[in-house]
Amino acid sequence: MTVYRLDQLDQHKALVQCAQDMQRPQAHLKHLIAAPDRLQNYSVRGGGLFLDFSRQRLDDRTRDLLFSLEELLGLRERFGMMAGGAKLNVTEKRAVLHTAARSFDHAPVLVDGKDVLPEIRRVRDQIKRFSDQVHSGRIAGAGGKPFRHVVVIGIGGSYLGPEFVSTALAPLADRNITLHYLANVDIDNFGAVAKAIDPPTTLWVVISKSFTTAETSANTAQAEQFMRGHGLDPAKHMVSVTAKGSPGDDPARPVLQTFHMFDFIGGRYSVTSAVGGVPLSLYLGYERFEAFLKGAAEMDRHALDAPVERNLPLIAALISVWNTTCLGYQQQAVIPYSSPLAKLAPHVQQLNMESNGKAVDIEGQLLPKPAGVVIFGEPGTNAQHSFFQLAHQGRPFPIDFIGVLRPHFTQYDARSKGVTNHQELWANMLAQARALAIGAGHDDQARFFSGNRPSSTLLLDDLSAENIGRLLSFYEARTVYEGFIWGINSFDQFGVELGKKVADTLRGEMVQKNDRSEYGFEAADPISKFYLEKLFEKK
Amino acid sequence: MTVYRLDQLDQHKALVQCAQDMQRPQAHLKHLIAAPDRLQNYSVRGGGLFLDFSRQRLDDRTRDLLFSLEELLGLRERFGMMAGGAKLNVTEKRAVLHTAARSFDHAPVLVDGKDVLPEIRRVRDQIKRFSDQVHSGRIAGAGGKPFRHVVVIGIGGSYLGPEFVSTALAPLADRNITLHYLANVDIDNFGAVAKAIDPPTTLWVVISKSFTTAETSANTAQAEQFMRGHGLDPAKHMVSVTAKGSPGDDPARPVLQTFHMFDFIGGRYSVTSAVGGVPLSLYLGYERFEAFLKGAAEMDRHALDAPVERNLPLIAALISVWNTTCLGYQQQAVIPYSSPLAKLAPHVQQLNMESNGKAVDIEGQLLPKPAGVVIFGEPGTNAQHSFFQLAHQGRPFPIDFIGVLRPHFTQYDARSKGVTNHQELWANMLAQARALAIGAGHDDQARFFSGNRPSSTLLLDDLSAENIGRLLSFYEARTVYEGFIWGINSFDQFGVELGKKVADTLRGEMVQKNDRSEYGFEAADPISKFYLEKLFEKK
Repeated sequence: MTVYRLDQLDQHKALVQCAQDMQRPQAHLKHLIAAPDRLQNYSVRGGGLFLDFSRQRLDDRTRDLLFSLEELLGLRERFGMMAGGAKLNVTEKRAVLHTAARSFDHAPVLVDGKDVLPEIRRVRDQIKRFSDQVHSGRIAGAGGKPFRHVVVIGIGGSYLGPEFVSTALAPLADRNITLHYLANVDIDNFGAVAKAIDPPTTLWVVISKSFTTAETSANTAQAEQFMRGHGLDPAKHMVSVTAKGSPGDDPARPVLQTFHMFDFIGGRYSVTSAVGGVPLSLYLGYERFEAFLKGAAEMDRHALDAPVERNLPLIAALISVWNTTCLGYQQQAVIPYSSPLAKLAPHVQQLNMESNGKAVDIEGQLLPKPAGVVIFGEPGTNAQHSFFQLAHQGRPFPIDFIGVLRPHFTQYDARSKGVTNHQELWANMLAQARALAIGAGHDDQARFFSGNRPSSTLLLDDLSAENIGRLLSFYEARTVYEGFIWGINSFDQFGVELGKKVADTLRGEMVQKNDRSEYGFEAADPISKFYLEKLFEKK
Repeated sequence: MTVYRLDQLDQHKALVQCAQDMQRPQAHLKHLIAAPDRLQNYSVRGGGLFLDFSRQRLDDRTRDLLFSLEELLGLRERFGMMAGGAKLNVTEKRAVLHTAARSFDHAPVLVDGKDVLPEIRRVRDQIKRFSDQVHSGRIAGAGGKPFRHVVVIGIGGSYLGPEFVSTALAPLADRNITLHYLANVDIDNFGAVAKAIDPPTTLWVVISKSFTTAETSANTAQAEQFMRGHGLDPAKHMVSVTAKGSPGDDPARPVLQTFHMFDFIGGRYSVTSAVGGVPLSLYLGYERFEAFLKGAAEMDRHALDAPVERNLPLIAALISVWNTTCLGYQQQAVIPYSSPLAKLAPHVQQLNMESNGKAVDIEGQLLPKPAGVVIFGEPGTNAQHSFFQLAHQGRPFPIDFIGVLRPHFTQYDARSKGVTNHQELWANMLAQARALAIGAGHDDQARFFSGNRPSSTLLLDDLSAENIGRLLSFYEARTVYEGFIWGINSFDQFGVELGKKVADTLRGEMVQKNDRSEYGFEAADPISKFYLEKLFEKK
């Protein structure tokens, strides 16, 4: 594929001009959305979801210019190369195959001449067998008691994705298993989990590709000490999800089972691999995990096959880049009007900010300005009562509203003010998108709403496992497409390395102090030394 | 007090010049923090906490200029007026007396000539008596069984503050009561709570100043239907926290007890009133709630009494304004290295964004640019594995790191790599602040860290109720001081009104449709109409 600089394209110059034109009073959203067929021309259904971008600050010319980037930059072609096994993670020389994790096709996907699908299927079969055996009690805890608690030890991509999905589908969890997450190395995270579980009926799922992640290793060591303290054998209460040959895949350190993950699936894209597969199958049953995979696979096909004007994640990505690079918005909110989607924003926060929070292009050249935005969000209507003051009258930022036609708990249908609570929820979602767009005049500036604040609305029919898979894949594909447009590598994360390196130094100081109480932190910088002294004086 | 425009002050012009000077290579943080006594000159202890701002992009001249704003703008004088009962919420003509909610002083605080403290003390006494009686079983659920679950129905300020405090102090909850929050009008929020409780031993605490908040009314109606469905009398399972004379204070609608809240305490500042008092006393015991109040009161006194160069919240506020208005940062992250502080960021998000997300000054004149920033955050080290890629290499934003010297669960002391988990947590916190500041060179741009990314570090000795009170008051006072400096009203929130108004219209459409299924949503705009049809076709 050719390499390009977005900011050097004629189309980019034209888009910058469009962005200036959008500042004119007649380009205010209240006028744009008044056009007949606005919704029809600025919405699209596909991959099982519906995306309305009628309230983005786009006119036909801008939209068509953005759409023209698809062919110019070969965006779908790049997506196809990715799904076909090309090593698009150039800095780490790795393929990017989260799409293969949910593939049920049989056409081979080759990496270095080898089809990766048989291994993926083998792991899926292993997950199915294992979770079925846990549910039937054939694999059980101490004294043969069935497992009732699963604690997932993992951080970042080994935590946020599974947490998003398990929270979204919690009302479907019918296997008599409670799921807990132990991500933070903070012992207060450990303590809270320890209080909530019953050790003899607890299964610990340790997830780390390298099995050297500092937090996960530390939490695993603490969990093993805890199990032994309860007279339990860690080997009989633990499984690992890790790369083949890692320290977690070492027969000298036995566990109930080891499930393999692969270097061609990055952490933040790994929910549909064994990372999500093991905990979600234990919690929800393997069948629901498979339904989730199939929903994700459907959106993957849509992301690859649908022409740009009907391609949800591609359109969403073009809008992200337009909003960030051309209109200058530095934040984006994700506001699901659905409590079970409460953990979507933290997941997308990692997925998107770790993927696209980059200052260099794919060739390592500094970008003219950094890519990526701050992603944040809380469920609506909670968000309305929290930070929407700033959204309406302070600093504007684009919003993804997410609506769900049918909630989980349809049996609760009390009415207030003549509507059900679900209708009230929808009245609010629709009202916010509209109010932000149109604004309202007022003689008193304190009660004036300038409007012209952009949003998209994404619709799910319900909160089925399939739809959660579609939603997951939508945000993954949107993130990947954004990276393609910006011309960056969305699959590495060197930005986390420096902190680790400095932490190694400081940990070294602590080790010396633990060994010799008279050690004076001689190798630490003066500011860190002050804190190290504070920490140790309190011992 | 005189009114001023920050942007028209000579000091502001000088600060803008300072901001330009800070772009020079020699003003990079790696140089600034190398100065001897940097930490000593840029840190302060007071009100029971410690604030290190050595890694903010400040030199002596800038710091001193910022400090000079205190006298020039009468910042502490304004704070004193606020705490003394002045009606600083000018648009709503209300006093701003959250500080009185935790006052144990006896000097009167007059509003319209009347001392507010006796009523505040009366409500506190009522909370003490009530929670003691619930704990002793004298006030009990159906069949005389003691209450074991408390569900707080409230949203925004009636939710986020209590949630922050109850999460922070959860390991101290020893009254055999589980606390649940029902904020969102989403019935999936209701359904999740309904599954988790035992109706006969559940007490519902309905919190709404006006008792007309749409979400809270709808959830209360649903809860009452649910109780009746379980053969329970809502009047015997419910208390209200509301303004005197509101519909929630109506003897025709009986509840176990009503606790009053006052119009001089705004929702987002109300945690230390009955809003927090009732649920927190039930959950933790009244004594801990009072300890929490006393910590907050200590920080209030510090915020008022300490001269600017030793005043934590005032310094933090000056830095916020400097970062936002002069250096141009549009976001700020709150990263506690402590899992129990997981809900601090959502609380501060509301507190700060609703208070200061304003476009007009106190006189209703448009500001040259909007005040306020996007506040977001997750606990460290989780945040490192999520969005810190962008923090280190993408778009920079200032960070509040929050460290806790002694966690709740000190008994878990397994070591990994020669350090305890608590030490590992600290190694990471210290490393992040340092790495962001200093950066690191590299021939490969993809592995290059530009550094110069600002942060503060706030230290708590432990997670006692007192310290959580201090932390709460610190962020409240910081928010208030920011508003004073920007010259805005931090106590109104007209930005939420337009959405409510549009929602009223859309709810009206739904009511008509509920009444007559042939109704065609004739009064709705075309885009909303599309969604209303979708919602109703699925019925």
